[in-house]
Amino acid sequence: MKQVYFDNAATTPIRDAVIERMTEVMRLQYGNASSTHGMGRSAKSLMETSRKTIASFLNVYASEIVFTAGGTEADNLVLRSAVRDLGVTEIITSKLEHHAVLHTVEQLQKEYGITVSYVKLSDNGVVDINDLERLLQSSNKSLVSLMHINNEIGNKLDLAKVAALCKAHHALFHSDTVQSIGHYNLDLQTIPIDFLAASAHKFHGPKGVGFAFIRKGSGIKASLLGGEQERGYRAGTEAIHNIVGMETALKLSYANLEAERKQISELKTYFIDQLKRLSPDITFNGNCEDSENSTYTLINVCLPIAPEKGGMLHFQLDLKGIACSKGSACQSGSNQNSHVLSEILSPDYLLKPSVRFSFSSFNTKEEVDYVIGVLKDFI
Amino acid sequence: MKQVYFDNAATTPIRDAVIERMTEVMRLQYGNASSTHGMGRSAKSLMETSRKTIASFLNVYASEIVFTAGGTEADNLVLRSAVRDLGVTEIITSKLEHHAVLHTVEQLQKEYGITVSYVKLSDNGVVDINDLERLLQSSNKSLVSLMHINNEIGNKLDLAKVAALCKAHHALFHSDTVQSIGHYNLDLQTIPIDFLAASAHKFHGPKGVGFAFIRKGSGIKASLLGGEQERGYRAGTEAIHNIVGMETALKLSYANLEAERKQISELKTYFIDQLKRLSPDITFNGNCEDSENSTYTLINVCLPIAPEKGGMLHFQLDLKGIACSKGSACQSGSNQNSHVLSEILSPDYLLKPSVRFSFSSFNTKEEVDYVIGVLKDFI
Ligand SMILES: Cc1ncc(COP(=O)(O)O)c(C=O)c1O
Ligand SMILES: Cc1ncc(COP(=O)(O)O)c(C=O)c1O
Repeated sequence: MKQVYFDNAATTPIRDAVIERMTEVMRLQYGNASSTHGMGRSAKSLMETSRKTIASFLNVYASEIVFTAGGTEADNLVLRSAVRDLGVTEIITSKLEHHAVLHTVEQLQKEYGITVSYVKLSDNGVVDINDLERLLQSSNKSLVSLMHINNEIGNKLDLAKVAALCKAHHALFHSDTVQSIGHYNLDLQTIPIDFLAASAHKFHGPKGVGFAFIRKGSGIKASLLGGEQERGYRAGTEAIHNIVGMETALKLSYANLEAERKQISELKTYFIDQLKRLSPDITFNGNCEDSENSTYTLINVCLPIAPEKGGMLHFQLDLKGIACSKGSACQSGSNQNSHVLSEILSPDYLLKPSVRFSFSSFNTKEEVDYVIGVLKDFI
Repeated sequence: MKQVYFDNAATTPIRDAVIERMTEVMRLQYGNASSTHGMGRSAKSLMETSRKTIASFLNVYASEIVFTAGGTEADNLVLRSAVRDLGVTEIITSKLEHHAVLHTVEQLQKEYGITVSYVKLSDNGVVDINDLERLLQSSNKSLVSLMHINNEIGNKLDLAKVAALCKAHHALFHSDTVQSIGHYNLDLQTIPIDFLAASAHKFHGPKGVGFAFIRKGSGIKASLLGGEQERGYRAGTEAIHNIVGMETALKLSYANLEAERKQISELKTYFIDQLKRLSPDITFNGNCEDSENSTYTLINVCLPIAPEKGGMLHFQLDLKGIACSKGSACQSGSNQNSHVLSEILSPDYLLKPSVRFSFSSFNTKEEVDYVIGVLKDFI
């Protein structure tokens, strides 16, 4: 059966060169990076090279990169320590954040009694910058946590603008950039952001590894305690194969960025056009139709299908070998509605099925045609 | 140059079959285990098979195994939640625990004001069971955290005895079994332990993955918040390649357990004999010379070398291609003295160099001879 993988925002296939490099590291570099003997130093040197490479893409110091077990841990690390160690008493965020941010913030509210403010959203789930400014004016010791690219609807935040606003109001700024690292160039010397979170499996790297960028002198402290790894920011024997895999994947992503962005953007435009042709009643959730204000890597569409039939859509797509998603992957298991769509759609739209199709350079127009064909039978 | 790897308590080489399986999984099984489509279900099914296999070795339910990024995270998860969610107000532990336990306990003491009691140690760093009982008698809502195998000196705790004692006093019992899972069979239906922590890279599996055993109905809650992975115990996209690698490694460890234990035990005995021949002044730290009360996988020796010369020992061993350790790997980087040896040795012994040699089935007697030869030149 034909297999079409349009769920790259959930996770991406690992590039062959990444797998090869990881296999090589697993075979030859089994030392513990904390050991002082030759095998240990060799592992450590690989790891520090990975750190430098990754730092160079963001234009930051290597010491500002802390390896974690993924994007979730990076978000948790920053948010928790900001409250526990930096004296943050208010977190300003949005209802459209990933649960790695939202649930952590809720827990911190319970544990520490901090204030949590949710910024207003205008049409299509766009962060209302005026409201953010209003919130910042009346707060003190606050941290803003707003993602760069929304993983469900693809909305893109103007990071530089928000960073400048935070700076002007002496607020810390954390951004979940899990969906943008490897897909966008960020120069953190220009953008005065304090913290960010990234995850390798979103840019054709391995699962279970990511990093936090933690700006020098921030005062963030570890949440995982134990050995002195990661200069005290994060205990636990480092997964060298995964870290080197992440480095290799990021290098390839940035080396091919322009070409792949072009290819994927064209695919997205083509997909949108074909959908519009299919039915004038198809609508696009969030900003995903707007190429300026959304990522080139995904679309989220609401299909004009009645609930009885719509309930079967994902099942049917799956039967036809099409991998796509209702909301974020980590929710789809629980079969709940997307918290993002519930926030931005009116009740009648929520009755119709919405689908996120998310792309990588491994996808083709032919795959789009196949999906369109399957949808045609359905609508 | 000859390379001898005698630092298997720091980390072990990955078995070839494990690397092959991981490579295969990375190539073919890139779905997100939380996705409901075919690729996701396939990844999830692999992961759940791994969970079942691992659970079966411990004779527990699959649902009692929670995958983590390693032993450190498993220790942190259990200890933190015991205090935060289970109302534990006293932790009874020992000064010889790994820092993943000790530093976490210290932090919990700071954050929550819990009482921390350190059980008395008799000669050789053996846990004084009478003192433990005394502590248990005068405590309430307590958790005991004592490791099965000490990673530096190899002392083995009588888990069944301690578990029974804890049960009798209604205390929870957590054991850091990072050095014993894969090396010892544990039947958790017989031993009424509540929690344990394990790490794959200590049994020829990949780094950056481990698990916590959390007995059903314990009430433990997640520390890493986000998606609904691991049934809410631990958020973050699961690293399927690492989890399957851990399963494969554990299967091989237990399939070969008797043969490998015999081989490694012989190697250890041989090593001890050769050392004694080398000099009657060599002493063994902890219980490591006692085959009943220590693990077969390591020795820790104090060598009769004067401080001026002794300071160069590790450097010289490294030059000769011998990988071994001063204390635990995660400390050796920081060049501090071992907290374990400082606790059990008298000041004059601390002046002499101590070395931990730790073994796997990949080691040979010939390698022991080589090390003995190098030591001979030195003593
Ligand atoms: C925006 C966003 N943040 C955080 C995460 C969590 O990353 P990880 O699964 O690596 O923990 C994801 C994806 O799962 C994501 O899309
Ligand atoms: C006894 C013990 N506990 C915990 C750990 C930490 O495990 P990990 O490095 O997988 O986090 C180790 C080894 O590093 C250990 O030897």
